[in-house]
Amino acid sequence: MGSSIGKLFTVTSFGESHGRCLGVIVDGCPAGIPVAEADIQKEVDRRRAGLSIASTNRTEEDKVEILSGILNGFTTGAPVCLAVWNKDVDSSDYEKNRYLLRPGHADYTAYMKYGGFNDYRGGGRFSGRITAGFVMAGAIAKKVLSLINVDILAHTVEIGGIKAGAVEPGKIKESADKNPLRCADAAAAAAMTELIAKVKSEGDSVGGVIEGIALNVPVGLGEPVFETLDGELAKALFSIPAVKGVEFGAGFNVAKMKGSQNNDPFAIRGGKIITTTNNAGGILGGISSGMPIMVRVAVKPAPSIAQPQQTVDIKDRKEAPLTVKGRHDACIVPRAVPVVEAMMAIVLCDFSLRAGLIRG
Amino acid sequence: MGSSIGKLFTVTSFGESHGRCLGVIVDGCPAGIPVAEADIQKEVDRRRAGLSIASTNRTEEDKVEILSGILNGFTTGAPVCLAVWNKDVDSSDYEKNRYLLRPGHADYTAYMKYGGFNDYRGGGRFSGRITAGFVMAGAIAKKVLSLINVDILAHTVEIGGIKAGAVEPGKIKESADKNPLRCADAAAAAAMTELIAKVKSEGDSVGGVIEGIALNVPVGLGEPVFETLDGELAKALFSIPAVKGVEFGAGFNVAKMKGSQNNDPFAIRGGKIITTTNNAGGILGGISSGMPIMVRVAVKPAPSIAQPQQTVDIKDRKEAPLTVKGRHDACIVPRAVPVVEAMMAIVLCDFSLRAGLIRG
Amino acid sequence: MGSSIGKLFTVTSFGESHGRCLGVIVDGCPAGIPVAEADIQKEVDRRRAGLSIASTNRTEEDKVEILSGILNGFTTGAPVCLAVWNKDVDSSDYEKNRYLLRPGHADYTAYMKYGGFNDYRGGGRFSGRITAGFVMAGAIAKKVLSLINVDILAHTVEIGGIKAGAVEPGKIKESADKNPLRCADAAAAAAMTELIAKVKSEGDSVGGVIEGIALNVPVGLGEPVFETLDGELAKALFSIPAVKGVEFGAGFNVAKMKGSQNNDPFAIRGGKIITTTNNAGGILGGISSGMPIMVRVAVKPAPSIAQPQQTVDIKDRKEAPLTVKGRHDACIVPRAVPVVEAMMAIVLCDFSLRAGLIRG
Amino acid sequence: MGSSIGKLFTVTSFGESHGRCLGVIVDGCPAGIPVAEADIQKEVDRRRAGLSIASTNRTEEDKVEILSGILNGFTTGAPVCLAVWNKDVDSSDYEKNRYLLRPGHADYTAYMKYGGFNDYRGGGRFSGRITAGFVMAGAIAKKVLSLINVDILAHTVEIGGIKAGAVEPGKIKESADKNPLRCADAAAAAAMTELIAKVKSEGDSVGGVIEGIALNVPVGLGEPVFETLDGELAKALFSIPAVKGVEFGAGFNVAKMKGSQNNDPFAIRGGKIITTTNNAGGILGGISSGMPIMVRVAVKPAPSIAQPQQTVDIKDRKEAPLTVKGRHDACIVPRAVPVVEAMMAIVLCDFSLRAGLIRG
Repeated sequence: MGSSIGKLFTVTSFGESHGRCLGVIVDGCPAGIPVAEADIQKEVDRRRAGLSIASTNRTEEDKVEILSGILNGFTTGAPVCLAVWNKDVDSSDYEKNRYLLRPGHADYTAYMKYGGFNDYRGGGRFSGRITAGFVMAGAIAKKVLSLINVDILAHTVEIGGIKAGAVEPGKIKESADKNPLRCADAAAAAAMTELIAKVKSEGDSVGGVIEGIALNVPVGLGEPVFETLDGELAKALFSIPAVKGVEFGAGFNVAKMKGSQNNDPFAIRGGKIITTTNNAGGILGGISSGMPIMVRVAVKPAPSIAQPQQTVDIKDRKEAPLTVKGRHDACIVPRAVPVVEAMMAIVLCDFSLRAGLIRG
Repeated sequence: MGSSIGKLFTVTSFGESHGRCLGVIVDGCPAGIPVAEADIQKEVDRRRAGLSIASTNRTEEDKVEILSGILNGFTTGAPVCLAVWNKDVDSSDYEKNRYLLRPGHADYTAYMKYGGFNDYRGGGRFSGRITAGFVMAGAIAKKVLSLINVDILAHTVEIGGIKAGAVEPGKIKESADKNPLRCADAAAAAAMTELIAKVKSEGDSVGGVIEGIALNVPVGLGEPVFETLDGELAKALFSIPAVKGVEFGAGFNVAKMKGSQNNDPFAIRGGKIITTTNNAGGILGGISSGMPIMVRVAVKPAPSIAQPQQTVDIKDRKEAPLTVKGRHDACIVPRAVPVVEAMMAIVLCDFSLRAGLIRG
Repeated sequence: MGSSIGKLFTVTSFGESHGRCLGVIVDGCPAGIPVAEADIQKEVDRRRAGLSIASTNRTEEDKVEILSGILNGFTTGAPVCLAVWNKDVDSSDYEKNRYLLRPGHADYTAYMKYGGFNDYRGGGRFSGRITAGFVMAGAIAKKVLSLINVDILAHTVEIGGIKAGAVEPGKIKESADKNPLRCADAAAAAAMTELIAKVKSEGDSVGGVIEGIALNVPVGLGEPVFETLDGELAKALFSIPAVKGVEFGAGFNVAKMKGSQNNDPFAIRGGKIITTTNNAGGILGGISSGMPIMVRVAVKPAPSIAQPQQTVDIKDRKEAPLTVKGRHDACIVPRAVPVVEAMMAIVLCDFSLRAGLIRG
Repeated sequence: MGSSIGKLFTVTSFGESHGRCLGVIVDGCPAGIPVAEADIQKEVDRRRAGLSIASTNRTEEDKVEILSGILNGFTTGAPVCLAVWNKDVDSSDYEKNRYLLRPGHADYTAYMKYGGFNDYRGGGRFSGRITAGFVMAGAIAKKVLSLINVDILAHTVEIGGIKAGAVEPGKIKESADKNPLRCADAAAAAAMTELIAKVKSEGDSVGGVIEGIALNVPVGLGEPVFETLDGELAKALFSIPAVKGVEFGAGFNVAKMKGSQNNDPFAIRGGKIITTTNNAGGILGGISSGMPIMVRVAVKPAPSIAQPQQTVDIKDRKEAPLTVKGRHDACIVPRAVPVVEAMMAIVLCDFSLRAGLIRG
């Protein structure tokens, strides 16, 4: 249950890490949107590229297949089903350690929730690999949003305590694309790369922070009081495995600020109402203000590490040591960057349809 | 649109700050739950008490009325409608400044979204006063959750940069109730009080952080991948006006941690599987782990301040100065504490019904 | 649970027959729609007028109160809460017969579902009186639909086996308003009146059929495959107590027809694509075709009758005779006519918003 | 949009008649349910068998593939994706007649709704073939319902005016399975067969009525007032292409009945509360009463006929004759029988989960 998101632009996820495929259904996409497999492949590839620096041994081609909803290069208005097939699957390690709960993973909660029937191979439904489906749906959402010029980008702003310096907004996208860390500050990216290599050599991992930005969002998206734009974005972003915090604009810094500092003064520039600062992160009262949507997402260090750990055997209900071989990501942050974009795109697309800005 | 939350335990908010009433409908509450007006009044009063230290001039009795769904002291299974009537309403200031966009408020976004038809008096639907309805619904949710011993509490952990020291979990509730700041650390509470007085005298306001805790939550609540427990809690918490960030467990600190530090080792204590640390904040893979749910919420400084501000007149589309008289909260954090509890209770109640732990 | 209907135009019902009030919240109504209490009162009065011929003894003024969401005569975009207060309530009969299950009523199912905690007075949530809320919401929906010229009307086409003759579509509304039966065929109305009087004198009741028509519905409303226009209309219409069947266009007659008879040929008239017959009832593939939506609704005879009946005492779990005094409707069909209109309006309004024809 | 049904047991349909595949995702199925491909194949085969008497030329193997959510023969709690691949596809006729609106089909409404981008080949999303997905989901729902002994069956009760005689309830299933018409009255089945052959030879088609029955449904399923059991069943049944009417129990006959005839007297039999008649069709106040759910569904004659028809060319916007070759079903009623069962199973499964009778 709970595998769908969105009211009018509805994304349903299916598939498992070691099952036959990973996929997604996008229902509610307007008809007549030009979508090529290449548009979707590009986002799936960006997600895979994020692996290059600190990747697992698994190498999946992840070739996108359109199973329904697109005819002669255009969406038909019918549900769009997209899938990648799992091919390079080796579940032997998971069979061996099946009952050893991996700390930081969902092994325990999934076992208890599903009475031990959950697919435990490669984390099953809880694998980061599930996000391949998210970016496929996000690729469609981006195409739809391009109709109203909404532009979405994300970049790495912190890894293991190393913070990226400020980069001129107009240059973030281009700069972030230049390194596998997707960090727009080249110097910080170099330091992060070094840190990740060190951490990897120690059989450990590091976390980080991703910033997501949406530009040209029209004023008025979001529904008070219970379907706010910030609330729905946060909900969507917490669907990304490993996310532990979401903040908008000044975020947790507001705790140290005074109202006179935090309030964004309104002004008129070029005939347009704007705010001269953006501590609100583009959202006031749960509704987009026309200023850039600014969100930051905390990503925990990958729970799969090579170091021995203390855990419990759920079958024997006894404490037991755990050592997992192979396939560790020292840092999953870069890989999560396109996923953050995807989830933002999905939510903004849904609200644009709700507002009638795009006809469904 | 968007005034409802929850799939099986559904809360619908209505009413405005200066309208006839503020209310809420709770649909899906199981029949046979003993609910007295006093149970609900208690939470509404706690929310009002939060005002005492730094309050507006408005004094509302906020007497709760049960309009439907409860007969002879028990829920009937029908929708429960609860309301408080607005009495002490003076909209004259709002008439005068109707077209001056108050920075940090939703005046601009609401005006644009609703074409100027929104109720502008006292912030209308965007007033913090709307949360009176939230706590009424939360009071019902708490009663339902008490059937399975789930206990929810929240407390102030930071105001204007002053952080509360750690308090033994078992003593937080009792200690936090001892001061109007709802801060469990008495020394910090004293410093916060002083700061708020100073800030108030300057015509300014301060923000803070609230920590919410849910104890005895059964393993297994939350639905991967798009209706995760953390995602739904975050969505609910962002419905509280002024919230700008939500984090679970180690939260944004994960950016500085290694996997070996952040992973919570599993162990067995008293025959029960637990984790020896709780960086996960009680949620793994979007599902409750049985450990305490720990969430922190950033609350921005109240946007209504006495200092003059720069803004825009939306009717004339000209820049204009703004000075708002009377009725300022120097700090809305304490008042938001019971609201955080309410939103947590609503979400956990919904998931408990979905899991069939409580029959609807 | 389940007290809401509609995705973007969402109606939530609350209140009980003998509780404090009956009401409704309309969420998602666009801002700026002119709505006066009189617009809503008119529909509530039409529903009450349906009682005149065969009414209960209960006389409620049913004065509509707007509790939220409307300011200075226009909707604000916030949830609109509407209520009528119950005043003429005498629950003594219901106390006496509390455990005697009234045949044809929901006494048994409600008792079992809610463990005996349901409000049994006057049928509680299951009273036909609940539809006062439906027509209030429908009045708002009609106002919204008038923006795109959609016109909705319903009329009585059969009572107790007496069928109304065909009336020219353009004259149905005017003719149906001329008699309390809301039957456009005056001769049939007279016969129905006679029949009802006879049945009433026997302490019995009769059922009937209502036809609902929606004109000027744009092509394209309805969503295949699971949120079809016919499916959503049917769901909404079955919410009206006593409805036992719903059919569109040729309806159950299709079982006797051949494809060559039932297929509506397409043609062009005045440059517009139409069908020369309307066996489809204005819906093809779950989507409106631009032809009039034609739906017929079977309404069972009112279950409250004066004749003695055989039943069970649920407390003693023994068979027992039942005789109910006073307050019987010999025919609830006329009263249900405006309710059919209301439910049609609510569904069509929701789909018009979904289609972006009206901006939310 | 609108391709999903169900709140806790959620079925999402995808695929087109001439696309790559037809499929369905079942989300919310409890973990640990034994499901083999054969269980699902059986229902898909029953649907295909319904074609034998009056089938199109298209012969699809319709081999079911499980793409996700089932591991080692048991559901895992993850979304179950099921698909059959389209193989025997010849779209040439559809290319030729692409712009000729077939009367009784959704060609016109789909063209208008989707701006001509809809998949027109074989009716695309509007083909009866879409129901292959429905029965796959229904097969899962039936497995879940078997946990609480709910039994669902449907049979043909009328075709082209020929009505089946009453059959003892306990013998319907067995008898209906004996002929391809799925009619439990052998004599009527023979007459229907003859009629269909005659109609087929005339290049025409006939409609009919299917009765669906659910046995052992616990008391208490269904939610007043807007998510009634009858309402949700009706909505689900109208998703089946060609359905034009739905009635419960006495159905449209109530228009001719008196309350004293229609009210089902309560009685006690074997210590259990029952009603001695079942005019209510097992539903009172939108809630199951424990008596058999009885629903009848009107199925229109297949719109594809060999006779020449009058229509419009949507591209030229001119009237034009239409003659379609090959592939006609003289009667789609038998094929729809397992689909009626599937939709009933899906709805009842959803309500059983909502009621906590089965844990999700």
